[in-house]
Amino acid sequence: MAQYARYVGPNGIVHTGRLQHGKIQDIPGDPEILDLLTMPEAQRRDLDVRAGRSQKLPIADATLAVPVEPRAMRDFLVFEAHIAGMKKSEPGDGSVPPQWYEAPAFLFMNPWSVVPSGADIPMPPFTQKLDFELEVAMIVKDTVRDVPIEEAAEHIAGFCLFNDWSARDIQGNEMRVGLGPNKGKDFANTLGPWITTPDELEKYREGDRYALEMSVAINGEVVGTDNLRNMSWSFEEMLVHASRDAVVGAGDVLATGTASQGALSERWARAGGELVIPPLQVGDVVTMTVEGLGSISNRIVEQRSPGHTVPPARRTYGPDRL
Amino acid sequence: MAQYARYVGPNGIVHTGRLQHGKIQDIPGDPEILDLLTMPEAQRRDLDVRAGRSQKLPIADATLAVPVEPRAMRDFLVFEAHIAGMKKSEPGDGSVPPQWYEAPAFLFMNPWSVVPSGADIPMPPFTQKLDFELEVAMIVKDTVRDVPIEEAAEHIAGFCLFNDWSARDIQGNEMRVGLGPNKGKDFANTLGPWITTPDELEKYREGDRYALEMSVAINGEVVGTDNLRNMSWSFEEMLVHASRDAVVGAGDVLATGTASQGALSERWARAGGELVIPPLQVGDVVTMTVEGLGSISNRIVEQRSPGHTVPPARRTYGPDRL
Repeated sequence: MAQYARYVGPNGIVHTGRLQHGKIQDIPGDPEILDLLTMPEAQRRDLDVRAGRSQKLPIADATLAVPVEPRAMRDFLVFEAHIAGMKKSEPGDGSVPPQWYEAPAFLFMNPWSVVPSGADIPMPPFTQKLDFELEVAMIVKDTVRDVPIEEAAEHIAGFCLFNDWSARDIQGNEMRVGLGPNKGKDFANTLGPWITTPDELEKYREGDRYALEMSVAINGEVVGTDNLRNMSWSFEEMLVHASRDAVVGAGDVLATGTASQGALSERWARAGGELVIPPLQVGDVVTMTVEGLGSISNRIVEQRSPGHTVPPARRTYGPDRL
Repeated sequence: MAQYARYVGPNGIVHTGRLQHGKIQDIPGDPEILDLLTMPEAQRRDLDVRAGRSQKLPIADATLAVPVEPRAMRDFLVFEAHIAGMKKSEPGDGSVPPQWYEAPAFLFMNPWSVVPSGADIPMPPFTQKLDFELEVAMIVKDTVRDVPIEEAAEHIAGFCLFNDWSARDIQGNEMRVGLGPNKGKDFANTLGPWITTPDELEKYREGDRYALEMSVAINGEVVGTDNLRNMSWSFEEMLVHASRDAVVGAGDVLATGTASQGALSERWARAGGELVIPPLQVGDVVTMTVEGLGSISNRIVEQRSPGHTVPPARRTYGPDRL
């Protein structure tokens, strides 16, 4: 197996390529990446060999596209040290709620917001606390339901990095309502740089986890590190849980949630709300690296949204109904 | 304009039809429903006329399909009396959080879970508190971003009913984690019965709201009523807010959230947690009706999911990181 990227050709069309030695090789027939990952092994191996004889584009010269365009994107919260840090400054007694330990909670994200590594991230309107989230995403191979744990691995197409950009001040307000974050997290999510198939990670395997070093840097300076082995649930368990009595579709993204130290907000929370590392500013470049999966990098640019607002809630009921 | 349905033909293929006088008329060329709603007015009117000469299927004999298969489905919470009721039994002081009044909060839902009126709803595993949510959904016509309020109406393809089935015991546990509900709401959402175009509702218009009677019945007995005019934000405002610095796609669903009395859980919360109307049981039929939009009806059937579970969280960090 291999690493497969989607990239934008000179004609503006998105192609699928195979990564080898820092170069992208065209794949004969230009298959869709999910078709490639679900075709019979012998057929794909044949394409891999033929790709080796094709045109090669250095990665540094390529404009990457997102590896998949998911219909549903679920973001979990499987790193205990991240939630433990966050809860230190949220309402409550500062401890992780016991319900977190029972099952791997997640939320659905905006599937239209995925952007590739290299894309500019416009500063969202109304935020003074732009932040990132260092995560790993699993791409699902087939449309499934009620997957048992023994079969979960065969439905995983591969892995990539995921950066769930977050406007913390907006998110914090929204979470008081009870539905989880919404406008605080719906404007951009970096997915990339490419898909790495599971067999490529076998050398990092420890039981049902992968021991992959993870890091995030602002303008080249590392500000947080963790290891993917610290997931409190495995990728297979995330898929079992998500697919229980529900459809998980081919190409869907299931992301781990933030690694410990993988967001500035965790540092702020641990420092009692003090902005010990400043929120992201226009011009900042955020680069995330995960061993075996590559790096994603994006620059924050000037706000582009006009920031349309709506009036506050209108009162329409009489006191008899409230 | 008109009402358009998707229905399953005798060959198992989904067709688009036009509703007239309780019958479904085939539309020449069998266009996709969104193509139909975005084509030039003269062209669609021509198709409507020609549909009038086609085969007619009584609605009662039709197997409906979902009117659209959204990529993203956003569920709002715009009925104040519903959240006011719910908060009476949630942690906190029993009042609506001030943040709810500031902007129309929403959450993304599982787009794979949409089912049509008439579909059986299998009882989800592990719940003893199955419930419904009476809502109206707006279907978005175009892929848009940063829609100003003056232009919002032209991006609305039409409206239908939405029932956000909810396992309240599971949801309640999940909401303690802070991400909002997930497995408590990802198994089924009824969308239907068909799309009604906005001009069909002009006669019900009051300012920027529609005055439509809404009701929900269990086994034919009405258990809750409200009026769509009680929305605290308009559909146009929901679209402005959702599209601020974010993509809302063609075919996306934006639902109002539960009307007052539109869920059993609101009754339970107002009664201090007492199950004054019992949770849904296998065999129950839930029917929702909204003036001008039609009715959706589904029966609860035996559990079908094997209910796979995952172990609780593994502790992987040392105390230095927690």
